[in-house]
Amino acid sequence: MSNPDPPRLGEFDLIRRHFAPLAKGVEAALGLTDDAAVLTPTAGRQLVLTADAMIAGVHFLADDPAADVGAKLLRVNLSDLAAMGAAPLGYLMTTAWPGDLSESWIADFAAGLAADQAEFGIGLLGGDTVSTDGPLSLSLTAIGDLPAGTALRRDGAKAGDLIYLSGRVGDAGVGLHLRQDAIVVAEGEDRAHAVERFHRPRPRLALGQALRGLASACIDVSDGLVADLGHLARASGVGAAVELARVPLSPLAGAIGGPAVAITAGDDYELLFTVPTSAEARMNQAVASAGVAIQCIGRIVAGADVAVVDGEGRPLELPSTGYRHF
Amino acid sequence: MSNPDPPRLGEFDLIRRHFAPLAKGVEAALGLTDDAAVLTPTAGRQLVLTADAMIAGVHFLADDPAADVGAKLLRVNLSDLAAMGAAPLGYLMTTAWPGDLSESWIADFAAGLAADQAEFGIGLLGGDTVSTDGPLSLSLTAIGDLPAGTALRRDGAKAGDLIYLSGRVGDAGVGLHLRQDAIVVAEGEDRAHAVERFHRPRPRLALGQALRGLASACIDVSDGLVADLGHLARASGVGAAVELARVPLSPLAGAIGGPAVAITAGDDYELLFTVPTSAEARMNQAVASAGVAIQCIGRIVAGADVAVVDGEGRPLELPSTGYRHF
Repeated sequence: MSNPDPPRLGEFDLIRRHFAPLAKGVEAALGLTDDAAVLTPTAGRQLVLTADAMIAGVHFLADDPAADVGAKLLRVNLSDLAAMGAAPLGYLMTTAWPGDLSESWIADFAAGLAADQAEFGIGLLGGDTVSTDGPLSLSLTAIGDLPAGTALRRDGAKAGDLIYLSGRVGDAGVGLHLRQDAIVVAEGEDRAHAVERFHRPRPRLALGQALRGLASACIDVSDGLVADLGHLARASGVGAAVELARVPLSPLAGAIGGPAVAITAGDDYELLFTVPTSAEARMNQAVASAGVAIQCIGRIVAGADVAVVDGEGRPLELPSTGYRHF
Repeated sequence: MSNPDPPRLGEFDLIRRHFAPLAKGVEAALGLTDDAAVLTPTAGRQLVLTADAMIAGVHFLADDPAADVGAKLLRVNLSDLAAMGAAPLGYLMTTAWPGDLSESWIADFAAGLAADQAEFGIGLLGGDTVSTDGPLSLSLTAIGDLPAGTALRRDGAKAGDLIYLSGRVGDAGVGLHLRQDAIVVAEGEDRAHAVERFHRPRPRLALGQALRGLASACIDVSDGLVADLGHLARASGVGAAVELARVPLSPLAGAIGGPAVAITAGDDYELLFTVPTSAEARMNQAVASAGVAIQCIGRIVAGADVAVVDGEGRPLELPSTGYRHF
């Protein structure tokens, strides 16, 4: 509507050069030439749909590598599918590009998506490409599926269930602080891993699917362990008690303030789930091949309190309850 | 990540107050409390998915009524479903809000969506709510379905097929010019209608569904009649000849430069479709109850030229080929 000046690269050229290749071989995408994608559901399966937005300066740094931005946009959505126990099928994406973004940035962004598509076995189904006077604004809708009736929910936890966490928390928080030059950490494997985990979360898709029929509730850790456990507990109408000493933490957690901070840091995208004690053994067997360690960190309790206790059973004072956007 | 000041209204409150009500009673949305929506496909039907973005200052004016912005965001996506012949099921939406937008604007935006949900019989399935330092940025993914194998495509037009248009073109273009104070038109029904059509396109859902199995190709007119006919012709590997005198135009087309401009103006969201002559009578019968007039405006021809001819058969010189975002 604002009718900007003739472009470096038109909308249709942008799609043809950089985004159409992401839909190549994806039958449902119809070559991105139609008004919409046409997806054929598999009999007996339900579809799982989720959408997340990322804004430059809010969800990623303007100088983050473009390929990482593309990968993170996809992965945070795949993590939502993982938390429901779904297998990913594909995605739609809308992008609003500021005029000063170079074509090479866009090419790198698309390359990040292409690499992840190969890794996760999915493709681009459709979307929209527009211009903006503001920061780069990205939105992605991911679609997955699962056998009907097996979706993991947040609201099934019962008092007495065990609370489990995959991987560890704090790495992404350390990575963010490192990228913001807010902390100093010696070069080394842990440092590189923390930055990698901030840029490229690992959606726990195999784990989520293995938990179907076994976990009583599940959520991914995006806002922070304590905040997301709070979401799960509220949805289930229960309380929770986590033993801090059992929570696997980034070895660099000390750099951002220690364990109590690491358990409120966001962006780790691990799975936090609950299991009835009667299903624990079967669950451990089922997830053995999921490629990620899991750890029991506490127990669901009656009531509504979400508490984290130290080695002497004393509740911790927590610095915050996780990142909020507003 | 930028950790803005404490908000007037937090992310979760915003969702709870204004967006959760849009998902009320929508089984698949799980009350917006989970990581994703779970949709149960109907046996024998395919899903149709489309996504469009709208940015303040690019796709709508900053002072457009908030309810109209919500309605337009939904309707442009429903128009894509209509062009495929799909019936709408629901939608996911991501919104990036600038800090200075008032809660009453957000409430009006949600009210525009709520009214349209009732009109089109759909609900909100999920999404994301974030903040931005830039303009209000909206993205919506609409999901519909249709009997397997009946999707209308752009690529099925054959030489000899008749070209049909629903409604008329030019109103939305007049409405845009009026909203920009770029033209002067006397108050009256036509003027109000033009502004209304710019703000609230009417997705031709009943027509699209009636055309399944009858139209050889279909597209919605978003970029302009000539540009969108070009998309359809290219996808089908054919040319097209439109008789200008047969194209139903806004009675105010003169205000924006006459018929040749009206047929390149965008945003009318009518359906443009092709029909083999052998199916014309059946098609006319099938669409009789769709609530919108249709008009034959020309014919598909061999070759690759898309021409608009005047009363003497002379090709028109056209001022542009439709709006592009870059």
